[in-house]
Amino acid sequence: MTGTAPAPFTADDYRARMARAERAAADAGLAGLLVAPGPDLVWLTGYAPPAATERLTLLVLVPGRDPVLVVPTLEAPDAAQATSAPALTLRDWTDGKDPYALTAALLDDRGRFGVSDNAWALHLLGLQQTLPGISCAALTEALPMLRAVKDPAELDLLAAAGAAADRTFEEIRHVRFAGRREREVGADLAALLRRFGHSQVDFTIVGSGPNGADPHHEVGDRVIEHGDMVVLDFGGLKDGYGSDTTRTVHVGEPTDEERRVHDVVREAQEAGFAAVRPGAACQDVDRAARAVIADAGYGEYFIHRTGHGIGVTTHEPPYMIEGEEQPLVPGMCFSVEPGIYLPGRFGVRIEDIVTVTEDGGRRLNDTTRELVLVD
Amino acid sequence: MTGTAPAPFTADDYRARMARAERAAADAGLAGLLVAPGPDLVWLTGYAPPAATERLTLLVLVPGRDPVLVVPTLEAPDAAQATSAPALTLRDWTDGKDPYALTAALLDDRGRFGVSDNAWALHLLGLQQTLPGISCAALTEALPMLRAVKDPAELDLLAAAGAAADRTFEEIRHVRFAGRREREVGADLAALLRRFGHSQVDFTIVGSGPNGADPHHEVGDRVIEHGDMVVLDFGGLKDGYGSDTTRTVHVGEPTDEERRVHDVVREAQEAGFAAVRPGAACQDVDRAARAVIADAGYGEYFIHRTGHGIGVTTHEPPYMIEGEEQPLVPGMCFSVEPGIYLPGRFGVRIEDIVTVTEDGGRRLNDTTRELVLVD
Repeated sequence: MTGTAPAPFTADDYRARMARAERAAADAGLAGLLVAPGPDLVWLTGYAPPAATERLTLLVLVPGRDPVLVVPTLEAPDAAQATSAPALTLRDWTDGKDPYALTAALLDDRGRFGVSDNAWALHLLGLQQTLPGISCAALTEALPMLRAVKDPAELDLLAAAGAAADRTFEEIRHVRFAGRREREVGADLAALLRRFGHSQVDFTIVGSGPNGADPHHEVGDRVIEHGDMVVLDFGGLKDGYGSDTTRTVHVGEPTDEERRVHDVVREAQEAGFAAVRPGAACQDVDRAARAVIADAGYGEYFIHRTGHGIGVTTHEPPYMIEGEEQPLVPGMCFSVEPGIYLPGRFGVRIEDIVTVTEDGGRRLNDTTRELVLVD
Repeated sequence: MTGTAPAPFTADDYRARMARAERAAADAGLAGLLVAPGPDLVWLTGYAPPAATERLTLLVLVPGRDPVLVVPTLEAPDAAQATSAPALTLRDWTDGKDPYALTAALLDDRGRFGVSDNAWALHLLGLQQTLPGISCAALTEALPMLRAVKDPAELDLLAAAGAAADRTFEEIRHVRFAGRREREVGADLAALLRRFGHSQVDFTIVGSGPNGADPHHEVGDRVIEHGDMVVLDFGGLKDGYGSDTTRTVHVGEPTDEERRVHDVVREAQEAGFAAVRPGAACQDVDRAARAVIADAGYGEYFIHRTGHGIGVTTHEPPYMIEGEEQPLVPGMCFSVEPGIYLPGRFGVRIEDIVTVTEDGGRRLNDTTRELVLVD
């Protein structure tokens, strides 16, 4: 994605998002927001420079003033073509000049600012040095819910990305598993995601047998065998919005224990989903899923949080984890993905993206959650 | 690249690099280095987590103590497989715990630290909040030359990447240009780079006609026409080390003016290369190239610095630009890439990677710098 916006958004949409961000900043007592290339900038402006680099690109949002995009001169022509360009004032700077001084002139030198989580330390330190009187907070801590509540157009895009991931699962369950390397099945997953409209594949986890017990194992050279459990976790971006789903399949007939563990995870995922409703806290979703696994005696083998938000990235706030008291709000989208990981043996994870509705939750993934047997 | 090191380096190599970094930190009065996922971490440890995320991964180097890698528990199995793992102490933290407190316990709470340029603001702010008495400096400012001087094994890898880029140019000059879209020629470049051993393609710029006058134009839908100048700038990573070369070709016979502009850029590139020798300043390379272009009356159309370093990235210090007084040292590698950009008309750029030798410079790209005519 270079300089272009996800499909359906106009300059007015971006103007509205920037105004909403400025209001949220003011409400939180911030003097402004400093937005770096990446998901925040894409969401607010539709603009994605070719790469985040040592050359400063920064959107400066100060409540009550027009949004300013600081850009390297080299990249100004690209930025001027962004959909949101009519809503932005561009301030370009050439190699050898000091972009922090230019930025500082736009800021209250005693203010508190929200800074994109992924802004480079180089740039944050440059600003802190130029303006020693400011204070800064990470944007997801200062305004954790800024991008969390999706509007109807965004929900449509997330649902379409989810449907494409579901079609990917419906195809992959019919390919050959036994005798092939994880890496080959991973390549199949990536090709399918692209075939169903993804422009970017973020991950294709194929965790077979003992590899499934490492939740972050991606793909390896292990040859999948008859009798393996296989965790399949895949997703990426379609039209600028994310997909992320997990199903665990079994090559041939499972043992009773494998069935039991899969049942426990399926029930945990059901319980997490059932806990989704407006006003519940993020941690309630985690607690609901975790209780099922703990009650079944596998508590120590569920070693990660239950979920994470999704939007213009495949991984963002809100997080479904103990201690996260943020209440759920209609329009939020996040994963519900409990798992059990038995070291050296196998793992099971089941994951759907869920959105909060007025009276509960709606799944954006809906392939079967029963244990699917593959060849 | 996930969890694996570029080919030829051993745990001892990484141990030596970490020790060198600790000595450099101590010499610069730093209490330590805080190294984030990305090129610094790859260079120091060979370890690259699947992605830089909101979960803290951080290498902590404190002079006189053993290197510690702070990792999310989920990623600890991956990290334990890094080539450098025998030289590291892993400290893992689970979701919901405070990784900054864990890190803070390793640090002098009044010290000054060098922080990877690309460390996330989220993590820097987390540490600053936990340890308000520390001060931080960007690593490329605190220790700009840490990765700049390459050892013989690294030079071999950079030379091999350069040779692969040269083979790419030797092939691309024989493909059809007229009547094809920039994007198609860009895809040819990417395929050739991969064919000649690149694992990652970072950029394939095809700037035809007026698009060549925008130095950061990548590829577009413009159909290349007979009579176009075409800037071809391409590179990526091969075996973990970067390539980056530019040649400007012409579709059919050029005009006298096009030849003249190309000659000026070629002479500027020659002059920049000729200025490379131990003890010269980075800015001398820029000055030498820029003087040729200014003397020919095109000074205002050379709108970027003359070069940038290259190593485990395609873009890093040192920078060849006015004001950069850093002396050149044998083993440094960087681009020499002057250009002239005539808005709305065409652009010319010629770029080689050059390494500093005991008595001058050596090019790692060496395809012809004469104007190549294509079909």
